[in-house]
Amino acid sequence: MTISNHVDRKDSDRLGREMHVFAAELYPICRSITGNGIRQTLATIGERVPLRMVEVPSGTPVFDWTVPKEWNINDGYIADQSGHRVVDFRRCNLHVVNYSVPVCKKMSFDELRNHLFTIPEHPDWIPYRTSYYKEDWGLCLSHNQMESLDHGAEYEVCIDSSLSDGSLSYGECYLPGETPAEILISCHACHPSLANDNLSGVTVATFLAGVLSRLDLRYSYRFLFVPGTIGAITWLARNQKHVDRICHGLVLTCLGDAGRFHYKKSRRGDAEVDRAAAVVLKHETDSAEVLEFSPYGYDERQYCSPGFNLSVGCLMRSVWGTFPEYHTSADNLEFIRPERLAESLRVCLSIVDVLENNRRYRNLNPFCEPQLGRRNLYSSTSGSHTLGEEINARLWVLNLSDGEHTLLDISERSGMPFPVIRDAAHLLRDSGLLSTIKDSPVVRPDGSNSSTTRYSAALESGSI
Amino acid sequence: MTISNHVDRKDSDRLGREMHVFAAELYPICRSITGNGIRQTLATIGERVPLRMVEVPSGTPVFDWTVPKEWNINDGYIADQSGHRVVDFRRCNLHVVNYSVPVCKKMSFDELRNHLFTIPEHPDWIPYRTSYYKEDWGLCLSHNQMESLDHGAEYEVCIDSSLSDGSLSYGECYLPGETPAEILISCHACHPSLANDNLSGVTVATFLAGVLSRLDLRYSYRFLFVPGTIGAITWLARNQKHVDRICHGLVLTCLGDAGRFHYKKSRRGDAEVDRAAAVVLKHETDSAEVLEFSPYGYDERQYCSPGFNLSVGCLMRSVWGTFPEYHTSADNLEFIRPERLAESLRVCLSIVDVLENNRRYRNLNPFCEPQLGRRNLYSSTSGSHTLGEEINARLWVLNLSDGEHTLLDISERSGMPFPVIRDAAHLLRDSGLLSTIKDSPVVRPDGSNSSTTRYSAALESGSI
Amino acid sequence: MTISNHVDRKDSDRLGREMHVFAAELYPICRSITGNGIRQTLATIGERVPLRMVEVPSGTPVFDWTVPKEWNINDGYIADQSGHRVVDFRRCNLHVVNYSVPVCKKMSFDELRNHLFTIPEHPDWIPYRTSYYKEDWGLCLSHNQMESLDHGAEYEVCIDSSLSDGSLSYGECYLPGETPAEILISCHACHPSLANDNLSGVTVATFLAGVLSRLDLRYSYRFLFVPGTIGAITWLARNQKHVDRICHGLVLTCLGDAGRFHYKKSRRGDAEVDRAAAVVLKHETDSAEVLEFSPYGYDERQYCSPGFNLSVGCLMRSVWGTFPEYHTSADNLEFIRPERLAESLRVCLSIVDVLENNRRYRNLNPFCEPQLGRRNLYSSTSGSHTLGEEINARLWVLNLSDGEHTLLDISERSGMPFPVIRDAAHLLRDSGLLSTIKDSPVVRPDGSNSSTTRYSAALESGSI
Repeated sequence: MTISNHVDRKDSDRLGREMHVFAAELYPICRSITGNGIRQTLATIGERVPLRMVEVPSGTPVFDWTVPKEWNINDGYIADQSGHRVVDFRRCNLHVVNYSVPVCKKMSFDELRNHLFTIPEHPDWIPYRTSYYKEDWGLCLSHNQMESLDHGAEYEVCIDSSLSDGSLSYGECYLPGETPAEILISCHACHPSLANDNLSGVTVATFLAGVLSRLDLRYSYRFLFVPGTIGAITWLARNQKHVDRICHGLVLTCLGDAGRFHYKKSRRGDAEVDRAAAVVLKHETDSAEVLEFSPYGYDERQYCSPGFNLSVGCLMRSVWGTFPEYHTSADNLEFIRPERLAESLRVCLSIVDVLENNRRYRNLNPFCEPQLGRRNLYSSTSGSHTLGEEINARLWVLNLSDGEHTLLDISERSGMPFPVIRDAAHLLRDSGLLSTIKDSPVVRPDGSNSSTTRYSAALESGSI
Repeated sequence: MTISNHVDRKDSDRLGREMHVFAAELYPICRSITGNGIRQTLATIGERVPLRMVEVPSGTPVFDWTVPKEWNINDGYIADQSGHRVVDFRRCNLHVVNYSVPVCKKMSFDELRNHLFTIPEHPDWIPYRTSYYKEDWGLCLSHNQMESLDHGAEYEVCIDSSLSDGSLSYGECYLPGETPAEILISCHACHPSLANDNLSGVTVATFLAGVLSRLDLRYSYRFLFVPGTIGAITWLARNQKHVDRICHGLVLTCLGDAGRFHYKKSRRGDAEVDRAAAVVLKHETDSAEVLEFSPYGYDERQYCSPGFNLSVGCLMRSVWGTFPEYHTSADNLEFIRPERLAESLRVCLSIVDVLENNRRYRNLNPFCEPQLGRRNLYSSTSGSHTLGEEINARLWVLNLSDGEHTLLDISERSGMPFPVIRDAAHLLRDSGLLSTIKDSPVVRPDGSNSSTTRYSAALESGSI
Repeated sequence: MTISNHVDRKDSDRLGREMHVFAAELYPICRSITGNGIRQTLATIGERVPLRMVEVPSGTPVFDWTVPKEWNINDGYIADQSGHRVVDFRRCNLHVVNYSVPVCKKMSFDELRNHLFTIPEHPDWIPYRTSYYKEDWGLCLSHNQMESLDHGAEYEVCIDSSLSDGSLSYGECYLPGETPAEILISCHACHPSLANDNLSGVTVATFLAGVLSRLDLRYSYRFLFVPGTIGAITWLARNQKHVDRICHGLVLTCLGDAGRFHYKKSRRGDAEVDRAAAVVLKHETDSAEVLEFSPYGYDERQYCSPGFNLSVGCLMRSVWGTFPEYHTSADNLEFIRPERLAESLRVCLSIVDVLENNRRYRNLNPFCEPQLGRRNLYSSTSGSHTLGEEINARLWVLNLSDGEHTLLDISERSGMPFPVIRDAAHLLRDSGLLSTIKDSPVVRPDGSNSSTTRYSAALESGSI
């Protein structure tokens, strides 16, 4: 099966528009790491793909962390003495610092000032701020808004929020394949009205699950829509025994902007997904960059922690934190474009295609070349310009199909795109020149997919 | 023994002229992959070096191929209505498409046109075309010639050829050395009047065999003069059991033109011959280029097929297919120069010299440096300018002769030319400072020279 | 312990001045590879650090060499017919060729000329010449001095020296640490009035020993002040059984001039000291260069001979032989600067600091990140500018502390300076997040520190 062909250019335009509409539907919801916002978001995703909703009670210990209290908010504003709301949560949910405790009182501008956040360098933009792990309250507004306030006046501040025992919510979409070996796709779904970070990741993951759910696949796929950091930690804590099923994984974030692609490698650095992403980005995108692993970033931090050391990389267009719109009101629906979302989906499908089709074959005529000419495999019916590449790919596949090289190895060594190598292998197999080597991806109990087993053994034996 | 010294600059001029005379002798013969042309070519080579002629009957199966019918030609022409030959095989044997079936009839220019081949971009040159595996006929002529024909007239076309059961001919020159371990030198000898591709290769191989036949050598040498592709396949099919003797090999082609040298690595990529060629080209030629292996090319395609995976690279000046004269009448005796042929021979000898002398030694004073001064090894009798290099080479050889490093390793790590390292090692050995480690090149029954054994085992066990 | 902090900028100025004063004290002494000059030098060093003086009798065999006769000199001059000393050893000890045999006679300028050495390109400079292993005599003078002599006149030449049985002297300063595993610091102390080569090395080594003697250290340290070549060989011959204690080592030379730093790697090329030096030079100096090993140089030649193959590199500023002042009277006290000596000392301390602190730790919360925030480890009390680096270092240390990576590995992979990584590790350890892995540097009887055991076994078994 050639997965990336499932989205051709024509589909692509349509899909891009659908994806943007989906992101726009999610955009107004006030999400946080817990609460009704993320629940409503998961419910909306669940309308498109089969999603298991999970609720984990506040206070549950998850490794070194504890599931926090649940936060909900109804309203929030600053009103002047005439009762006019000069800052209003109902206009933009970024106005209230995420996880603000309730407050309702009058205070002077001077006192209020300590709770206000602005971006002087971008005086029209509202910043995004959170206070998850320290009980506090605050309001975010544009610098121009703040400047226009009467610095000698008194204001009424009201945040109608609640912070109390409840639960943390996440969603899990599992698509069973031929084998129990899994590919993990994870995105954080906790940010309020911010489009690139990370409604773009949520949207690409949702549509990727949609496309893959209609295909017969070798791998099983697990999509996680989780609150950042604490969500990934909670999922890992609840699924520690099963992570060895995960053979490959991608964290998806910042996939709707106009920047070139960046792929950040897993901690392993030479995992199959790292090589697959590199080959896809090299041949299918312009000037993409492959970044070395670093322990700072999104939820790959948790998947690549030393106890797990999963083969999980992170796919982005612009890297979080490097574009001025990051974590501001300017990261809005105009900042993400339909064609960029569709291209990101295509890249994900191409990476999946490499992983699905990356097999080893055995040349059944290993002594000298087989005579391709008498099988009509030495000249092509297509134009003379592509003739060379197709036949060249056949020669490469035959030459390296010694039972040791995978198609990804061959793509890397030949410098040819994976789909060309894949198609050559399938044609040669169908012509009786190659046999397929029967090694399906395995869930290895020796812990070679992750470090869990090794670490657990070390912990039990007291050697840690 | 220092082989490359056998051809000094003075010899070189003489040898270059002799080589060009030899190529000129072979040039007019109409060769093909079978037939009297290649037989006559082999006979001419056999006048200079001991050559065993082998005939393999048409129809013999050789791996996935079959030895083709034998092709011979007496005459071929296009005559106008006055009987004047406007295209005449007797003037240039490229005029008839190689392996053309016989034809003799009158036809309109329009009908004839479908069987004519020209090169519009080089209107004075005649192209070289073949039709080995599809029975057809054709004529090649300069574009100007074709343009001067009367496009409304009728012409007589005659190709007096035969295509019938016979045999495929190749020649084998075996020079026994101290050990049965072999170095294979292979060239294709099937092209008609084309000088660089590949009378240059045939000539360099013949003269290389001539020089080596007068020396006492560690390796045995096997020179193959074979028709391209089918000849190498036929030889491999008949010698499959013995290929494990082949420790190193070179395919020689396009060695007479004015281009810089190119060496294409074996499939292994780090074979001793790959490293030897790289070291020689680096130090003894200007701006040579070492190319990675690819499965397209000349007979290294067969030697490096996965079942054999022999350590065989390809030495060229200009790469086939990259110069405009390639496969045209412009690849003539003027295109190859005596001094280029001689330089190519010298490079081959230097590569052979590395392989012959690439041994490991053991420093008999491994603790601290031996006192070179009291042995007169610390200053040189030669001029002060070369003093440094000679002594430096001695220090390198002493330092790395720990029983693990070969002289080629030392040449690579020190960045010094192999002959300087070799001479230093011989001087130190003769001074009693080094012992020679007795590991002669071995014919390994474990198949580590090639993949044959491994593949055969896999085939027998049914695991393929 | 953080060793490099022991010399802060303020100390540095003072230390630089002290170091230069010390070099100035040693400068006038006429040293050679044996004799009273080196004895007096060692005595002066011994006033600052505990030094064991060793005397090895002339004629003692040391590997392939023999300890030479002892050379001493009282006086030397060329006098004109009026008795005026035109060249006078008492003004500059470079005037007499080192190891000159005694001579006292009158001779014509023409006869004398054969024993005179000058540097025509630098007509004011006096060259430094030796004749250790060939009995001869000579005088060195500036080219201008020689030109001013009366080429027709007769001169009296007198060298009041002695060359007779005695001993070779060297000094050894041993600082015991927690473990018997040793770091070797070696410098040649045999040159007469030459400042950069190598009073700079002697001075840096002496002050390094002084600083380290006041610290509690994991490694034991052995400082060798030896005559070049023969001294290192003699030491190795007398200590062959114990070299396996040496885990790391540095040869110090040319450390006072204004050039950028150069570190020449050990023969191993990837020894821990090679990596430590590279990391220090990258982060703590400008445009330093790391050079590959070569068998020519100073006493690393002996330590890295194949029988020993110790992990000993060579730290220099300008490389010997590459600056015009090398081995001339222009390599004087003005050529070495206090601040350069102090910087060289700091670099040595930083390398020692890496080796002392290069441990492996184990992350005690390997599954997901530990919650740094609640431990006040996720924001820093220092300014916002350095916040990022400190926290980033903590994340790197936690992520890679899987029991396999050392802090040096982490510094290399993260691209962060070693001290930042080290401090992060110590803070995390003190916070209970890391445990220290108890592998102290070991003196390995299997010869993995050096090749001695392997070579000795080979010698005994007769396989050499």
